[in-house]
Amino acid sequence: MSGQNACPALRAVNSAWRRQYSTSARKTPPALLNSPNTVFSGIQPTGVAHIGNYLGALSAWGRLCARSPPSTRLIFSIVDLHAITMPPPPESLREYKRQGAAMIMASGVDPERCVLYAQSAVSAHTELCWILTCMSEFGYLSRMTQWKSKLNIADDASTDNREAQKHLNLGLFSYPVLQAADILLYQTNQVPVGDDQVQHLELTRHIADRFNTRYDCNVFTMPNVLLTPTPRIMSLKNPKKKMSKSDTAVGSRIMISDTADQIAKKIKGAVTDSIEGITYDPEARPGVANLIDIVAGITEQPQKEVVKQYSMMKHGEFKTAVTDVIVSNLDPVRLEFQRISADPEYIDAILRRGAERANEIAQLTLTEVKRTIGLL
Amino acid sequence: MSGQNACPALRAVNSAWRRQYSTSARKTPPALLNSPNTVFSGIQPTGVAHIGNYLGALSAWGRLCARSPPSTRLIFSIVDLHAITMPPPPESLREYKRQGAAMIMASGVDPERCVLYAQSAVSAHTELCWILTCMSEFGYLSRMTQWKSKLNIADDASTDNREAQKHLNLGLFSYPVLQAADILLYQTNQVPVGDDQVQHLELTRHIADRFNTRYDCNVFTMPNVLLTPTPRIMSLKNPKKKMSKSDTAVGSRIMISDTADQIAKKIKGAVTDSIEGITYDPEARPGVANLIDIVAGITEQPQKEVVKQYSMMKHGEFKTAVTDVIVSNLDPVRLEFQRISADPEYIDAILRRGAERANEIAQLTLTEVKRTIGLL
Repeated sequence: MSGQNACPALRAVNSAWRRQYSTSARKTPPALLNSPNTVFSGIQPTGVAHIGNYLGALSAWGRLCARSPPSTRLIFSIVDLHAITMPPPPESLREYKRQGAAMIMASGVDPERCVLYAQSAVSAHTELCWILTCMSEFGYLSRMTQWKSKLNIADDASTDNREAQKHLNLGLFSYPVLQAADILLYQTNQVPVGDDQVQHLELTRHIADRFNTRYDCNVFTMPNVLLTPTPRIMSLKNPKKKMSKSDTAVGSRIMISDTADQIAKKIKGAVTDSIEGITYDPEARPGVANLIDIVAGITEQPQKEVVKQYSMMKHGEFKTAVTDVIVSNLDPVRLEFQRISADPEYIDAILRRGAERANEIAQLTLTEVKRTIGLL
Repeated sequence: MSGQNACPALRAVNSAWRRQYSTSARKTPPALLNSPNTVFSGIQPTGVAHIGNYLGALSAWGRLCARSPPSTRLIFSIVDLHAITMPPPPESLREYKRQGAAMIMASGVDPERCVLYAQSAVSAHTELCWILTCMSEFGYLSRMTQWKSKLNIADDASTDNREAQKHLNLGLFSYPVLQAADILLYQTNQVPVGDDQVQHLELTRHIADRFNTRYDCNVFTMPNVLLTPTPRIMSLKNPKKKMSKSDTAVGSRIMISDTADQIAKKIKGAVTDSIEGITYDPEARPGVANLIDIVAGITEQPQKEVVKQYSMMKHGEFKTAVTDVIVSNLDPVRLEFQRISADPEYIDAILRRGAERANEIAQLTLTEVKRTIGLL
């Protein structure tokens, strides 16, 4: 989107960004800032990440920081307002937020290069959420599947479903609208998401389009999916199931806080098969495929390249090699995570500064939205 | 509620109120401020009020300002975020907000005595709304009747109703949760409402109680209904129907902007009956009863007192007397409304100052809520 044809809110956001950036420590060539590209992504504060979370989001964010051209605006949010749709104990939520920030930074996210903040510290998220709520069709939302999967009911269930009537809270149902507000607030062009989030991004585009059409304006930038290339990481104990923090088997997952010894032990205990050699076949050999996926994710290689290196190995050798790859990648992350976690005041200061910067950008869009609908 | 046992948020609100009040032009005896009582009420910005709106809300607010002890905290909100659940054209919404403020002040509401502000200018409303959304049961909300009456579907319809699936927007469905936030944000004790709002206040109490119970706290004050004594004012043309701004028959309603001549003409054309004398019988004589209700509302007398004065009159005489009562009461309101409306900058300044004061109080509750659930 060129600066010339962009909506007033976007132009304002861009110029604020240029102002902000030009005064920050890292100078950016002004030429590049004329065609900015915004990437927004959020992560729920739910405690220490496992390697699946790490490869799916955190390390991808670190790479975005390291490799994006300086003109790319990177906004990363710890979405605590999403976390309370299934409220954790208050003490945990407080701890998880700091942990989240520490993990993100430990994964290579430079808080000077991006905007890193907690969602609840920027009121524009809920303000825009309410406005979009008034433009969101109930019928469309009732067909979304996430609230159903959280309640363990069928994807085609309606809101009349007995479980829904008993256990659904309105926050879980309205969640995708808040997510739309998160994204649209920053004039986001790209949203790195897993395939389970594609439906939500479709809703975001739908709402943005409805708004722009109804008010005959271009207040909202149309966001696109930036599909994260990493495949889904499965449980080490049951490679047909997604790796999960809530799995009762601790050995089913590798945490970014795990030591080299813990990682070695868990990989050694990973369920594989009795077929000789190493091949990539997620259907027939899910356990081996999962370990290949982990290595492929860490080393950023296609699976077939990984297989080439390890094809002749015995299972034991392969597991040792996999352990080495994981440890050499995760150990610095773990140490950095420990180091940052030891300084909660530093974390709070980073989040405070991030919230100020996020707020500055968000207010520009919000003001334009309010003007457009007559609230200002 | 005594200061001693109150929750921290309430104590903070009270002390901020005392600070604010003691620095304002109107000095208040500090003793009275130790047992504050908060009244909150809101009105949607939907254009110039008719006499039904005036008697039901505006004049009652004016009376609250004039007659409440100084220790009673009065908070009046122009709830523009509720108005966008059925979005008016942007130009209208902007105009309606100023009109709303002008009408409220013209009705005797002293902006120094109370807090008068527009809801959308205080972000805490949507912030608390989202938090309460996460604690609101979908099933309970689907049984509320307002969203159904707005869609003209039966009170016992479910969200699976075809009309709902087609035309319901999530804002209309979530409306009572925002209303709960409005009320709870100010540690409100009393909410003056018509009987159509009692269901919403029940939900507010339910949500407040759920929150206080879940977190074993007393963050929220339990609000009570302050039922407005004024009966429902009916259409002058069809006294079985509520008086409405959207009625196509202009003669069906008296607006607070009507001149004496317009009022006389409308009352003259009001549908009554051919029964001799004046008696109060809403079933058999709805047109006459409606005029009696109007006089009773304006003069703050019971209907039977009104009837005593007019019982011997012919219909023509009665209508002239009713006109006189209305004109003598509404004419100063109309003139004041014109005077204030001519100065939009003054109105904006009042609303800005009101939003600052409202925000100061609201933030205290919001901060306490966030601390309680772990967002802070």
